[in-house]
Amino acid sequence: MSKIEGIFVPNIVPFDEEGKINENELRRQTNWLIDKGVSGLYPNGSSGEFIRLSFEERKRIIAIMSSEVKGRVPILAGGAEANVEMILEACETYADYGCSAVSVTGPYYYNVSQESIEELFREIAAKSPIGIVMYNIPQFSNEISVPVVRRLALDCPNIIGIKDSSRDMPRFINTLNEIKPQRPEFSILVGCEEILYPTLVMGGDGGTIATSGVVPEAVMKLYNCFLSGELDEAKRIQFKLLDLINTMLYAPDFPHGFRIGYELRGFNMGSSRYVLSSREKEELGNIRSKVACLLTECGFEEAASNCQKSRADLVQPFVGTTLADKQGSSRNVIDVDKIVDEVLRNLGKI
Amino acid sequence: MSKIEGIFVPNIVPFDEEGKINENELRRQTNWLIDKGVSGLYPNGSSGEFIRLSFEERKRIIAIMSSEVKGRVPILAGGAEANVEMILEACETYADYGCSAVSVTGPYYYNVSQESIEELFREIAAKSPIGIVMYNIPQFSNEISVPVVRRLALDCPNIIGIKDSSRDMPRFINTLNEIKPQRPEFSILVGCEEILYPTLVMGGDGGTIATSGVVPEAVMKLYNCFLSGELDEAKRIQFKLLDLINTMLYAPDFPHGFRIGYELRGFNMGSSRYVLSSREKEELGNIRSKVACLLTECGFEEAASNCQKSRADLVQPFVGTTLADKQGSSRNVIDVDKIVDEVLRNLGKI
Amino acid sequence: MSKIEGIFVPNIVPFDEEGKINENELRRQTNWLIDKGVSGLYPNGSSGEFIRLSFEERKRIIAIMSSEVKGRVPILAGGAEANVEMILEACETYADYGCSAVSVTGPYYYNVSQESIEELFREIAAKSPIGIVMYNIPQFSNEISVPVVRRLALDCPNIIGIKDSSRDMPRFINTLNEIKPQRPEFSILVGCEEILYPTLVMGGDGGTIATSGVVPEAVMKLYNCFLSGELDEAKRIQFKLLDLINTMLYAPDFPHGFRIGYELRGFNMGSSRYVLSSREKEELGNIRSKVACLLTECGFEEAASNCQKSRADLVQPFVGTTLADKQGSSRNVIDVDKIVDEVLRNLGKI
Amino acid sequence: MSKIEGIFVPNIVPFDEEGKINENELRRQTNWLIDKGVSGLYPNGSSGEFIRLSFEERKRIIAIMSSEVKGRVPILAGGAEANVEMILEACETYADYGCSAVSVTGPYYYNVSQESIEELFREIAAKSPIGIVMYNIPQFSNEISVPVVRRLALDCPNIIGIKDSSRDMPRFINTLNEIKPQRPEFSILVGCEEILYPTLVMGGDGGTIATSGVVPEAVMKLYNCFLSGELDEAKRIQFKLLDLINTMLYAPDFPHGFRIGYELRGFNMGSSRYVLSSREKEELGNIRSKVACLLTECGFEEAASNCQKSRADLVQPFVGTTLADKQGSSRNVIDVDKIVDEVLRNLGKI
Repeated sequence: MSKIEGIFVPNIVPFDEEGKINENELRRQTNWLIDKGVSGLYPNGSSGEFIRLSFEERKRIIAIMSSEVKGRVPILAGGAEANVEMILEACETYADYGCSAVSVTGPYYYNVSQESIEELFREIAAKSPIGIVMYNIPQFSNEISVPVVRRLALDCPNIIGIKDSSRDMPRFINTLNEIKPQRPEFSILVGCEEILYPTLVMGGDGGTIATSGVVPEAVMKLYNCFLSGELDEAKRIQFKLLDLINTMLYAPDFPHGFRIGYELRGFNMGSSRYVLSSREKEELGNIRSKVACLLTECGFEEAASNCQKSRADLVQPFVGTTLADKQGSSRNVIDVDKIVDEVLRNLGKI
Repeated sequence: MSKIEGIFVPNIVPFDEEGKINENELRRQTNWLIDKGVSGLYPNGSSGEFIRLSFEERKRIIAIMSSEVKGRVPILAGGAEANVEMILEACETYADYGCSAVSVTGPYYYNVSQESIEELFREIAAKSPIGIVMYNIPQFSNEISVPVVRRLALDCPNIIGIKDSSRDMPRFINTLNEIKPQRPEFSILVGCEEILYPTLVMGGDGGTIATSGVVPEAVMKLYNCFLSGELDEAKRIQFKLLDLINTMLYAPDFPHGFRIGYELRGFNMGSSRYVLSSREKEELGNIRSKVACLLTECGFEEAASNCQKSRADLVQPFVGTTLADKQGSSRNVIDVDKIVDEVLRNLGKI
Repeated sequence: MSKIEGIFVPNIVPFDEEGKINENELRRQTNWLIDKGVSGLYPNGSSGEFIRLSFEERKRIIAIMSSEVKGRVPILAGGAEANVEMILEACETYADYGCSAVSVTGPYYYNVSQESIEELFREIAAKSPIGIVMYNIPQFSNEISVPVVRRLALDCPNIIGIKDSSRDMPRFINTLNEIKPQRPEFSILVGCEEILYPTLVMGGDGGTIATSGVVPEAVMKLYNCFLSGELDEAKRIQFKLLDLINTMLYAPDFPHGFRIGYELRGFNMGSSRYVLSSREKEELGNIRSKVACLLTECGFEEAASNCQKSRADLVQPFVGTTLADKQGSSRNVIDVDKIVDEVLRNLGKI
Repeated sequence: MSKIEGIFVPNIVPFDEEGKINENELRRQTNWLIDKGVSGLYPNGSSGEFIRLSFEERKRIIAIMSSEVKGRVPILAGGAEANVEMILEACETYADYGCSAVSVTGPYYYNVSQESIEELFREIAAKSPIGIVMYNIPQFSNEISVPVVRRLALDCPNIIGIKDSSRDMPRFINTLNEIKPQRPEFSILVGCEEILYPTLVMGGDGGTIATSGVVPEAVMKLYNCFLSGELDEAKRIQFKLLDLINTMLYAPDFPHGFRIGYELRGFNMGSSRYVLSSREKEELGNIRSKVACLLTECGFEEAASNCQKSRADLVQPFVGTTLADKQGSSRNVIDVDKIVDEVLRNLGKI
């Protein structure tokens, strides 16, 4: 089993006009992301609105994506089902589909004890045919505390990592310190977009970064620069991405902002499963325009027609060739230096 | 459609040895509660661990119970499904089964805006063939704010009530004040056991009270005393119940404490769907003994064998006939005055 | 030492043009409140902005008020000073001034342990020459948990009560249940305006109610109706007050809304110690007008000139004689029945 | 006025046997820290228990320390007084004493609006004779939001920096991004010990680090390594410090753990102003022993006699010369490489 590391894209589900999963578009999204060079895929996470799908739909998504991926990149499949039996059913199903690991949140809805969470993961780990990644997201579900994470990591070989979306950097650093010296291959991934770079600096193994589905070129550039020691460049990209991240993250209501990002990159996402007010839909229109301009400034020409600003008013002058043109189809020879230079010029010296 | 008022029992699901719904025991529980005189039943709520069941299981529970109830009491069915389409499927199914209304929480997992919640309920109300009860439980899901509740109550005839489990009495009083003068038949129910009596005093319409599944005799006595103007008696029962409520409510982990209560009244509840640590299981053993003694003191003789205290040490001396004997099978002639007198004697003058 | 019970007014400090305590106005406020029949006074609480005064100013306020009160009503003096030594200095000083008890919050700023809070109160209680009232206000300072309150109440004769501003009715009821049977004279006061009536119903001893400084006639009517068994009337006043309470409580920023209330009753309050934005000041202007209309509707004619609505648009037609005229100067013959009848007519039947 | 940057020590107040400020010990602490090479001093902060002192005592502390410092290092003086007038009195007083800037928290106790906080700082900034540092510590006082910080930083030259103790790294990075490009000399300091190094990497200007008062040698080594580009070394020290930080930070109750640290370095700290339970005092005894061992392992021999472990059991064998011996008295030639090598060896490769 390959280690879960690098940048995993939390996939967003495209729906068709009847509100069903748009299978063709999901396949197209999957291939597009692999072509852009992402490290792996992460369907049925929070960005993937797993909680608004039926279990059958969640299994269908993994079936579609795994049949399309055909082992080209690892899949970390979200499996935060309603009870132990259903979680294990997810683990077995996704193992059969060739996924690399299953991610499980702390229980949601009820507030439960840390020791029951520990017992829950022990039971799942003991029975799952596939590696388990703990998914800590205390905003939405019960926190999995650092001592519990530590004990599980040291006791359960089948628990292979943690994805931490808590936005809590002191916690992240303590997690590294508690586990890495004794189990260095345990994956510690960040799920908070704004601190990807500093977590890499501290020894993190990568992240699940929703923005990497919208601008995979930029996030992979950040990660690859880090790997190759171009630290200033990696840091500059992290700062440059903040405006885009904040715009999509704080749009009403999560994850609609990211759906807009995908649409501006050329995908038919359809409506979300979640109802918005008419005022919020109007606000999303403004956000669409803002995201379009940010993307245009980054050289993603397909977004330009949705940007209401004139070319002259864009922070970053238009570049003649789109990023897609420049990149070609090769995963490994992405040369985005020139674009990034232009893109980041306006940030000034940090 | 009958108004939702009085005491609705949040049903707890009995499981068999394989972890499946124990249908026979669920039917027996249903009949027992109706025999005890409860106002209505409330399956698939938080106490019913709806979140740990599959949608198919939730529908199965309503099918079983409604076929057993046969219209004797109204059923308020929990329908907090994953998305609008599934919520509406629940509404249609439960309407077909003869339920009186469907209860829907604010969305859980994500944090969403108040205006999107308002829109969500407007859409459900417009399409549901059955009345909707908003279920406010901010501990576990997004709060439905008072201004949103007010607008929905005044605009949507198909939204017929709110069940408020927020434990927030100032909010409850403001809700009464905002809605009752303009729509007096709108049901405002409390879901916080400790404040049932004061909410009745202020004009509330009843409650969904988990304890009423364990000691329906006592909670119905409280409610009936309130209705007949025996206010001191109603208040005394409220205070007397606090120890039992707190013991079951704060047992590890909700709703295991209530499962124990049912077992001590003679039901085979089986294991919960949720895993506990061995330490917590041990603690539950102590809680079982404490609940058993509290029940024995209340005259529920079936619990006596699980109480580790000697008869002499019980606050309330044993009464020769059990409550069940005394009550007979009639719903309306329950005379628990003598028991309650003895039961409450130890509380002293409040 | 007299028991602390009934309605204590959390006094609001009038300032002069230089921002100093306006001594004359404070004396006038003190006498006015006593004339209105309030049970007691509660200076240096949260409404009194104790945290924005110096210790010298806080002592000065008690000196002024106690010299004016001359024993006519009990004074509960706020003494939440920075450390044990200073709290004890406050206790000694206020005892010398003839106050009845000193109120002390849980520690603010830091988050501290429950056991350290218990130890803190034990130490204060052991050394104070005057009774201590615990002041639970978890919104602003560390909660004092019910088990700690219980132990302190049962162990420390010099801790004579608790004032609970937590807005948490289940907690309030549990507090009653834990203490009253064993120490019935222990005062349990509520500090949440919206639930004064239901706490009285459950056995509470009264409250510190900021609104009672603005409309002492109405709040004392509520309390006196409760005492004389006119429960429907008491409940109707509770509901009627909600609009006024909410308007003052949620004005920017606490306690500016209450300062406005005092001004509309004829007091020169001067500026608060706390700076507001210009937008907030503008909003306070609107709130002033709304409060003025609410007061005019209640028959407090002195507020009428600040109400921007025409007489015809007021919910409650003007009554020829002001409440002050009607009441005369006697504390005990307040006959506000007619006013309250008119006042509450618009609420409808709750 | 010199820029506030580098490592500022939040001073801890030594008390004598009567509970008064121990002036001699405070002078000795001040000199010791300067000798160790710290960048500056930060009295009257949260670690300094400012909230448990009187205003007179807070002024006395600044008087003592500034007279001892005599301009050798900058002093950032805590000035979070009760109201604008008192804050300005602090600013004037501390300016006269030669301090470099005054730090002011968001208001504590009440919950206030962001716009009122903005207005408050505008008023203070307009009138203060000395630079203001905003102190964001939402655990204990109202948060100062990033948009407010941004507007104040760009509008008010007299607001010269922010010290952010929120433990919120995404916020820290956004703060850098919002301000630095337009006002690069604005100081952005971290007040969260665990993330000092990553904030430096991202462009932060240093921090107020309570641990730097206990092991100034190590924290200054971290900072100096960062400045000289020895990044791996800086990172290793950050990880190595976590155990010590956590032990002192989570001791009952803050900041008692740090008081113990100072004592083990040879200072007579006396009792804290805050009362602990006897159980907590006992626990502090165990923490003292643990901190002593951690310090001994770091080569701080003065702590060895309080470490209950045998030399053989210490992670890090004793080194013959103490760190103090090695360092000599010079501020700039601190060579702790060898110590740190040994110290950090046990951490393994992060």
